[in-house]
Amino acid sequence: MKRSIAIMLAAATAATAAIAPIGAAAAQTAAPEVTEDFKPSSVNQPGQEYPQVNSQGRARFRIVAPEAQSVKVSLGLGGRGGTVLTKAADGTWVGTTAGPLDEGFHYYHLTIDGGTFNDPGTLNFYGSTRWESGIEIPAHDADFYALRDVPHGRVEQVLFPSASTHAQRRAFVYTPPGYDRNQRERYPVLYLQHGWGEDETAWSNQGHANLIMDNLIAAGKARPFIIVMTYGMTNDVRPGGLASFDIKPFQTVLVNELIPYIDANFRTLADPRHRAMAGLSMGGFETKLIAPANLDTFAYIGLLSGGTFSLDDVNRTPGFRDKVKLVFVSFGSRELDGGGMAGPPGAPRADPRANAEALKRAGINSVFYVSPNTAHEFLSWRRSLREFAPLLFRE
Amino acid sequence: MKRSIAIMLAAATAATAAIAPIGAAAAQTAAPEVTEDFKPSSVNQPGQEYPQVNSQGRARFRIVAPEAQSVKVSLGLGGRGGTVLTKAADGTWVGTTAGPLDEGFHYYHLTIDGGTFNDPGTLNFYGSTRWESGIEIPAHDADFYALRDVPHGRVEQVLFPSASTHAQRRAFVYTPPGYDRNQRERYPVLYLQHGWGEDETAWSNQGHANLIMDNLIAAGKARPFIIVMTYGMTNDVRPGGLASFDIKPFQTVLVNELIPYIDANFRTLADPRHRAMAGLSMGGFETKLIAPANLDTFAYIGLLSGGTFSLDDVNRTPGFRDKVKLVFVSFGSRELDGGGMAGPPGAPRADPRANAEALKRAGINSVFYVSPNTAHEFLSWRRSLREFAPLLFRE
Repeated sequence: MKRSIAIMLAAATAATAAIAPIGAAAAQTAAPEVTEDFKPSSVNQPGQEYPQVNSQGRARFRIVAPEAQSVKVSLGLGGRGGTVLTKAADGTWVGTTAGPLDEGFHYYHLTIDGGTFNDPGTLNFYGSTRWESGIEIPAHDADFYALRDVPHGRVEQVLFPSASTHAQRRAFVYTPPGYDRNQRERYPVLYLQHGWGEDETAWSNQGHANLIMDNLIAAGKARPFIIVMTYGMTNDVRPGGLASFDIKPFQTVLVNELIPYIDANFRTLADPRHRAMAGLSMGGFETKLIAPANLDTFAYIGLLSGGTFSLDDVNRTPGFRDKVKLVFVSFGSRELDGGGMAGPPGAPRADPRANAEALKRAGINSVFYVSPNTAHEFLSWRRSLREFAPLLFRE
Repeated sequence: MKRSIAIMLAAATAATAAIAPIGAAAAQTAAPEVTEDFKPSSVNQPGQEYPQVNSQGRARFRIVAPEAQSVKVSLGLGGRGGTVLTKAADGTWVGTTAGPLDEGFHYYHLTIDGGTFNDPGTLNFYGSTRWESGIEIPAHDADFYALRDVPHGRVEQVLFPSASTHAQRRAFVYTPPGYDRNQRERYPVLYLQHGWGEDETAWSNQGHANLIMDNLIAAGKARPFIIVMTYGMTNDVRPGGLASFDIKPFQTVLVNELIPYIDANFRTLADPRHRAMAGLSMGGFETKLIAPANLDTFAYIGLLSGGTFSLDDVNRTPGFRDKVKLVFVSFGSRELDGGGMAGPPGAPRADPRANAEALKRAGINSVFYVSPNTAHEFLSWRRSLREFAPLLFRE
């Protein structure tokens, strides 16, 4: 029934295309079965009507630039191409993605007359080393990261001194609901890293890590713990440069400066069995370099679209079998379809699921998770945190 | 000596203008005495070279949009006009403000081919009901809001339940250095409001309220207290609509919902003599409506470029003389030159300094402050907070 109404609406739009500028643009750039139930994206700026998303996961853009020669959106064609907007009779540029986008959060930008700009309709999110436009395609399971009427933890900006970088550095700290009331309680800590080109704002702004934790804790699914998020691109990481990446500057900031600061200023359980490190993409790469080299600091490890542990990795790491309480590895399903991010750059692709199973057979607490129908994007990582958090600090 | 080097550099630039695109643009739009010591603005996005600011307070912009027809910046001509960029030989658009800008923070945006966009070089700040580009002209007294090597407080995002608006609302809470260590100490609270078109991020992002407090506390100039910042545009406030503004929805959120939440979840001194309300511009307007009507809640009042208290105001408010411990009123000097913001819209302009003096003569603790050479902008309000904070909670 719903389906037939959608088809009727689409037909009505096609019939009126000649007089409806937005419908006309949609007819040019989208297949005829576009469902005309577009609503403003949830991450639009206050009061902004565009961009919009429909129930099929298509996005529609509308940009005011009456004298422009060309306006393109970097989203569309399944995320691999872009959407060319066309100029409507009223001087605005409009267009709809040719197909549905994956559920979840996507970065994008505009190309206007050859220059890169943000869509003035949306909030901006730090990714690709710049503040980019963002759009949210509502996920069928969006409730787990929604702002709900449950007790909320806090996200706190702390500025901590870093002698090694001669700076006051910034971190965000999630403290769970009740942290300030339960003055006698001490909490485990997860150090959670962003990806390349992102920063310490990503896990809250794009990831909703705080809301995911609030909801898990309210449902009794996760033990309340602290999450610490700081900037992981301490030295200048360029695209493709991860193979020659020197982990030491960031390791020094994290292990020698931030962790002591957090343990001194928050009520933590300051031992390895109550400390985890995880990261997405480059943050997973960093986790794999730092955590196994610091097993007297971290006993829980998570790589989210950021590599995999083989039995060889385990065997060549002294103490791994005794000290590591959990190895969690996850990917978006579309990453595995393409084989991506399973090994270090240039190395033969490893099968991350087979690696995870080999660890399990060897008696290691190894958990492998695949986020359905998502790519190297934040819905994969929101879901990964939802799966990872309940497994932490259970011993 | 410095001056003559600057003149020589400017002359050298003029001489090479024919082959130097940036110099050429500067020569077209700026007076000949432009000092060529431009540096990236401190609020640029990471790694971005433009916009730049020179020692005279002039700003230079550079925008990549090779096919654009026109690019304009909303800053320049003393802040009242704009700067038209010109297309350089390499396809970029460049231009320098015709004169120096006032010291401090300025919002701006680009107009590209008739559309409004942000400068991709800068961070964005919420103002004018949108995330706008920002630029910082270094102030001669910038040290008081700089990130320095002193103990830092935290800025915490809290989500509090609001039955009256059927929402989980956001506030940011500054807690002073040592808040978590001094578990037996309780703190006074300042409720600090943003201006029209801004939101609860403004006082931290644009205002550096946290850094101002860290520095004042480190210097022993202010008593450590908590600052709470939430969204004050609870109902839909349109420009010019303040005269018919209904304060009740926001008053309910602030007084009946947020204050009880803060008192329950932070270690506050929960009495009127340890509670202040202040705001800038529209936030001052709100403060003047809420604080005198709730003198059993607030004993300290601050209006920052947001109105003034006359002796009539005092006399018609029951309990004012007994209960109010401080009335602080401030403006940027350029606002007083223009007479702006001294009275409610439509009313005859009051002289805010005379009002403040009349209150003082009547025995009220009335303090009036004027920020030199600043307008209705954030440097006025940063300085106002620097002057206001040391006066708070002294009885």
